[in-house]
Amino acid sequence: METDCSALRVNSARLRADFDALAEIGATVGGGVSRLALSNEDLEARSWFADRIEEAGLQVKDDEVGNLSGLLPAEDAQAKTLMIGSHLDTVPNGGRYDGAIGVLAALECLRRIKEAGLKPRYHLEAINFTDEEGTWKSLFGSNAIIGKISANDISDSLHDNMAFRAALYRAGIMLPELGNARRKAETVLGFLELHIEQGKTLHDRQCDIGIVDRIVGRTTYNVAFYGEAAHAGTTTAEERHDALQGAAAFIIGAHKRVSEEFSEGVVNCGYVSVTPDSFNVVPAEASLRVEFRHPDTATLDDMEARLIALAEDCARAYRLEVAMERVMHRAAERMSGYLVRQIESACRAEGVRCMSIASYSGHNAQIMNQMVPAGMIFLPSVDGISHNPREFTEWRHIEMGANVLLRTIMQLAV
Amino acid sequence: METDCSALRVNSARLRADFDALAEIGATVGGGVSRLALSNEDLEARSWFADRIEEAGLQVKDDEVGNLSGLLPAEDAQAKTLMIGSHLDTVPNGGRYDGAIGVLAALECLRRIKEAGLKPRYHLEAINFTDEEGTWKSLFGSNAIIGKISANDISDSLHDNMAFRAALYRAGIMLPELGNARRKAETVLGFLELHIEQGKTLHDRQCDIGIVDRIVGRTTYNVAFYGEAAHAGTTTAEERHDALQGAAAFIIGAHKRVSEEFSEGVVNCGYVSVTPDSFNVVPAEASLRVEFRHPDTATLDDMEARLIALAEDCARAYRLEVAMERVMHRAAERMSGYLVRQIESACRAEGVRCMSIASYSGHNAQIMNQMVPAGMIFLPSVDGISHNPREFTEWRHIEMGANVLLRTIMQLAV
Repeated sequence: METDCSALRVNSARLRADFDALAEIGATVGGGVSRLALSNEDLEARSWFADRIEEAGLQVKDDEVGNLSGLLPAEDAQAKTLMIGSHLDTVPNGGRYDGAIGVLAALECLRRIKEAGLKPRYHLEAINFTDEEGTWKSLFGSNAIIGKISANDISDSLHDNMAFRAALYRAGIMLPELGNARRKAETVLGFLELHIEQGKTLHDRQCDIGIVDRIVGRTTYNVAFYGEAAHAGTTTAEERHDALQGAAAFIIGAHKRVSEEFSEGVVNCGYVSVTPDSFNVVPAEASLRVEFRHPDTATLDDMEARLIALAEDCARAYRLEVAMERVMHRAAERMSGYLVRQIESACRAEGVRCMSIASYSGHNAQIMNQMVPAGMIFLPSVDGISHNPREFTEWRHIEMGANVLLRTIMQLAV
Repeated sequence: METDCSALRVNSARLRADFDALAEIGATVGGGVSRLALSNEDLEARSWFADRIEEAGLQVKDDEVGNLSGLLPAEDAQAKTLMIGSHLDTVPNGGRYDGAIGVLAALECLRRIKEAGLKPRYHLEAINFTDEEGTWKSLFGSNAIIGKISANDISDSLHDNMAFRAALYRAGIMLPELGNARRKAETVLGFLELHIEQGKTLHDRQCDIGIVDRIVGRTTYNVAFYGEAAHAGTTTAEERHDALQGAAAFIIGAHKRVSEEFSEGVVNCGYVSVTPDSFNVVPAEASLRVEFRHPDTATLDDMEARLIALAEDCARAYRLEVAMERVMHRAAERMSGYLVRQIESACRAEGVRCMSIASYSGHNAQIMNQMVPAGMIFLPSVDGISHNPREFTEWRHIEMGANVLLRTIMQLAV
């Protein structure tokens, strides 16, 4: 059977019905979604996704870290697999689009190809990765696929992962088998991910599609300032060793320094805790979690050095001690040039306005890119709002993106 | 029987044995004490104190808010009462001296007077006030005595006091009866309190005794900055409404402004909480508890206005909303001039070096002073450290202070 591939389009109404149904799972009062990885809501979403896969006549595949896929096999059982997908989990009270669109569009592409009676040259796999957002361990599912997760990572040697282990166990994920989720690079053709931008570059430039050429690197630190508890009334300003003042100066200084010295960088302090956390005691300890990102790995390292120096300056200025612990580091990634060109070509064929763009958020594509060529398609986020119930992408852009994704898959694998 | 009053001294060894025994109740690893009001440790300390009162042959008195006293009655049942005391509760992991010294010294004075066979002209009452530190409600016991506590204060109309009610109930304190702890002003001669300074003025000046002439006023606010949750990677600095940056600027600014503009004032931010408190989300909300003190009530009001203006400035600078709620306000107090002179005279007779001093901590004497003449005797705190396990006062100063207290009582009431 011969088909005019260029005539193939996603079923937008069906995709939208899926989107609306999924958004109900873990829906929050303000129109957002809470589907934290391995929560009841996440497990319900996976079960719902498995039902959709079966309904479509695709094969359900469930690996050793809980990644859940729908498979459309090639005739040649030895063929490589083109993986397409994203994640169904969300941050607490996040948006409905982040992750969900990429999984649902992948499923829809496979459904259309199957419905059209096409025989792909490569196995096609629409995948939902476990815990992209880092409720437990950021980008857990994709890291497992490239062989970077083993039972040891969830041991208690450094961090208390007891609750994580319990959550995995409850989801039917067995610790000793985690390592078996690893795929051999030679079995995978590549990876494609459709995702909302979560920034406002595309929205501001009125561009329909972003083709991701770089993904930011990211480093996370725990920064703890240690001063001395003292009576809030009787201790003069000169006598204080106020840990919270040091932390406050660091927060202000980090944002200022990054804005002034690293135009492509961003920094966030989103977490702070104070000991003894009593209004009438001078804070003895103030701990921050600081994370910073840059699309260039060497510059990211410079930022790290500058922020360490800043923390030391703040400690000195307020007569404190400071301890810094690097919690996470992920190098910046350059995406596959081959896939960038394939997606460009699909955009041209679809007649949509596209541009190259750097991603300031981490994605499964960034992890998969360490093993196989990975490509990423961004959709405009209205006003750049994300990780927020008001996250919104126009449906016409979702439809365009899904069709660009479908066309890219056709070019590569059908 | 005639006694040479000037020969009467406290039994220092017995006072010290009491001090050491009490410090064991709620002792923490680092040499501090945790006897939060109405905790098991506090209840144990009260029970221990009641045993000491009985052992001394004094009468045990336990009022409707849990204030616990030892009474040495005057012959005339209609006589007024001279109250002497402080508190046995502590802040979390606080010191061994704060409060404890004042209660134990009061008990020791009554024991000595009784042992000497003296008949006081006024009833003498050594009192431990409930919850001075504000685990539940700052200066609860003394406020009840002057008639400022009723069951309504512990209702749920504004704040969630359920746990407080449960703690009171567990301690045998019945809500409907709280108001009955009130004393009639005409039944009370005055109040005396011996306490550590908790600052370093006496220590630095190598002075043995401070005679408190003023107690600072104190105002407490909840300050909440409201911004917008956003993705920590994709939201540019210009786009952020980062509540924690506003809070950090306020913390730094409040300390700076008070240091520069209010030489006698102090401010503390000891409590902060962030929502959603996730390292990869721009903070949507940051709440602070800020408290500030000044020995002059009018200037305290100026500080309040300046800090409100600062919070508004910080909110504007970071594109936030701010809400401020005045949680507590206590006016500054001028202590009884008559009692200041009585204590001065006792110091002269004891041959100790004394000075007038303002108290930067709140005390039960400040509350009692609203109803009857109150006097306060301060002891040097080594390095001014307090609310900290390293809180320390030399025993010779404690002995001097207890003897000045005893002599003052003798002057007033025996």
